[in-house]
Amino acid sequence: MRHVVVLGGGFGGLAVARGLAGTDTRITVVDRRNHHLFQPLLYQVATASLAPSDIAEPIRSILARSSHAAVRLAEATRIDLPGKRVRIAAVEGSDDQPSWLEYDWLVIALGVEQSWFGQTAWEEVAPGLKTLRDALEIRRRILMSFEEAEWTEDDAERQRLLTFVVVGAGPTGVELAGAIAEIALTTFRRDFRNFDTRTARVVLVEAGPAVLASYPEDLRAKARAQLEDLGVEVRLGKPVSEVDANGVVVDGERIHAATVLWAAGVKAPAIAATLGVEQDRAGRIVVGPDASVPGHPEVFAVGDIAHFEQEGAPIPGVAPVAIGMGHHVAACIRADLGGGTRPTYAYKDKGQMATIGRRRAVLQSGRFKASGMFAWLAWVFVHLMVLVTYRNRLLVFIKWAWAWLTYERASRLIWQTEKPPTIED
Amino acid sequence: MRHVVVLGGGFGGLAVARGLAGTDTRITVVDRRNHHLFQPLLYQVATASLAPSDIAEPIRSILARSSHAAVRLAEATRIDLPGKRVRIAAVEGSDDQPSWLEYDWLVIALGVEQSWFGQTAWEEVAPGLKTLRDALEIRRRILMSFEEAEWTEDDAERQRLLTFVVVGAGPTGVELAGAIAEIALTTFRRDFRNFDTRTARVVLVEAGPAVLASYPEDLRAKARAQLEDLGVEVRLGKPVSEVDANGVVVDGERIHAATVLWAAGVKAPAIAATLGVEQDRAGRIVVGPDASVPGHPEVFAVGDIAHFEQEGAPIPGVAPVAIGMGHHVAACIRADLGGGTRPTYAYKDKGQMATIGRRRAVLQSGRFKASGMFAWLAWVFVHLMVLVTYRNRLLVFIKWAWAWLTYERASRLIWQTEKPPTIED
Repeated sequence: MRHVVVLGGGFGGLAVARGLAGTDTRITVVDRRNHHLFQPLLYQVATASLAPSDIAEPIRSILARSSHAAVRLAEATRIDLPGKRVRIAAVEGSDDQPSWLEYDWLVIALGVEQSWFGQTAWEEVAPGLKTLRDALEIRRRILMSFEEAEWTEDDAERQRLLTFVVVGAGPTGVELAGAIAEIALTTFRRDFRNFDTRTARVVLVEAGPAVLASYPEDLRAKARAQLEDLGVEVRLGKPVSEVDANGVVVDGERIHAATVLWAAGVKAPAIAATLGVEQDRAGRIVVGPDASVPGHPEVFAVGDIAHFEQEGAPIPGVAPVAIGMGHHVAACIRADLGGGTRPTYAYKDKGQMATIGRRRAVLQSGRFKASGMFAWLAWVFVHLMVLVTYRNRLLVFIKWAWAWLTYERASRLIWQTEKPPTIED
Repeated sequence: MRHVVVLGGGFGGLAVARGLAGTDTRITVVDRRNHHLFQPLLYQVATASLAPSDIAEPIRSILARSSHAAVRLAEATRIDLPGKRVRIAAVEGSDDQPSWLEYDWLVIALGVEQSWFGQTAWEEVAPGLKTLRDALEIRRRILMSFEEAEWTEDDAERQRLLTFVVVGAGPTGVELAGAIAEIALTTFRRDFRNFDTRTARVVLVEAGPAVLASYPEDLRAKARAQLEDLGVEVRLGKPVSEVDANGVVVDGERIHAATVLWAAGVKAPAIAATLGVEQDRAGRIVVGPDASVPGHPEVFAVGDIAHFEQEGAPIPGVAPVAIGMGHHVAACIRADLGGGTRPTYAYKDKGQMATIGRRRAVLQSGRFKASGMFAWLAWVFVHLMVLVTYRNRLLVFIKWAWAWLTYERASRLIWQTEKPPTIED
């Protein structure tokens, strides 16, 4: 039986694995995490609204009924195109030996990582938001800043602790900034004794000229106004020139902040470079009209890691694209198996939406545009519907409804390394 | 205004803080974690049924409406009885300087920690179950063993990976062993391709002569039979003589196991020794009839960390005792404030219950005894009712109902250190 290796259990990889059900193939899905992650709601884990397991499901249980598909918890470390094989290594905590997986078809669906544009010193001080671990680290920093602000006796230090800088005003940056402002204004108000949480300052910094640059101009303006309604300071048109443990420098001005969050750029994972094929500036794999790697029809790249051009421009890195490309690749492999002709992939824009705080959002689909409460309800509905399991739809719905009614957040734990206490003698 | 310092935001500490509402005191609750933890359900986090935030709630939000009480995220490192002050240090991730907190009354409600009876080498290989971090580590080990078993080609290694030893057959050990057996028999059955998950082996080892030693003899026998129904091997009467990365040795026989879990003993945290007062063998603070430390009427110990004797025997370390002692201490401080006489504390046994798998349990309250489905339903009801927030009662109820109907587990994430992948060149 011919073997399809799928690297990555995100939306793209799962669409391929499911799309090949009933064919004469066996499939191995390789992922270095045991879970599929619904990234659009990751900012809600980072801002204490949801628990990790609300938006993550084991790849193994998603594919439990797909008996043609096996799941391997391992890390792909090299792709050998001429040898048609992938090198895989154990993840931490496993004793597996590195080995080669041979394939007849390979699907690369590994997504993208955060990029700090080569500023490696910024990575430590300004965490990005791409994994659950990132989200818990951001949550820890936000919650810990408020904890420290409660007991400091130095007003300048308190203001530094209560200043949150978000770099990058794409959807993730906008949603993070809105959620932090909302927490400070509502959730935390009654919880602290020694300061007014509404004095917290949230600054959204963007090098480009607008927030939500991919939206039509009037929605960009509305999004900005909605952020400012929540008290977020929006600074456009100047990049950050310095990022360190004390804050950032923008346009020559230092903003003293204990928490800096990074939502400004992405890059392809390093394994893309082991292919030796064309990559774009962010390292994404440039693919042909059928989403295969030029010169290697048996190798496909789908989702965020693929650079697919349509009408002269790359298509966006969003979940619907990954799912669509995944279905397309499954159709190509089916065509190969049947001796038919592969279809070409055509991207159809379904629109975009972003939420700002607890009752604001912007939405664009084709020529249709909306903002405010209606857009927010549409956002809630769509995001509930795309969660992978019915159980999580119900749980997330309850948490959202509860938070909406009470202003409480369901998941406010601070994770620390629990070192044993040092007893002073 | 006089100052009450409460060390620990568990059931005992919270009962004191709430019980002093309306008095002319200010209260500082010091805890090194930001959350109150409902320990009786910790084993359900360890076995992938519940998420950490389902059983943990920020101490700060529990006390949000208790405006007389402030919460301090810090670690108590020393108690200076003559000086009436407590040394506190920053938790990891905070820059706070160590400082002294002066008190008029001090309540020590810090609970107990796992004890490996001085075998420090066993701590790393056989994790205990006292904190959320412990629970996630146990969950990681259990899930990772199944992941590795899926891909090993060595049958003996697979059997080692699929062997789980639980040391200690008190309530925690019994509940852990039952839940692991249940997962292997049901939840995981459809998720693996290369082996039958029902071949997993769960061994419960106990040095004493019975499981659930604190229960009446017929219920002990029933609990044992219920465990054996689930396929758990129960080994009584012999302690483990060796614990290492390859398993344990019991009664001269080596059991090869990749996962060894420790539920065999507890000890008081090290700070108890800084008091310089009488401690029992486990380091618990021996208190007088009013729960105060002999010679220091202004200092109380409540809950698991206190050794309180009634009718010649120490009372058990369970949540109702901590709550009762907390209320009692609040009454004592109120008496002190009003110039009255302190009440003495009297423990009243409300009974005990333990659950085994998905529809078995044992229950004892006074002379009333039950086992099986009725006891299980009582267990479910009682444990839902004592969760701190209505939200979590609803969420946990839904997760339990869902799991009961589908055999799925809601929280099956594996946490690893997400080191960047090493790309092989």
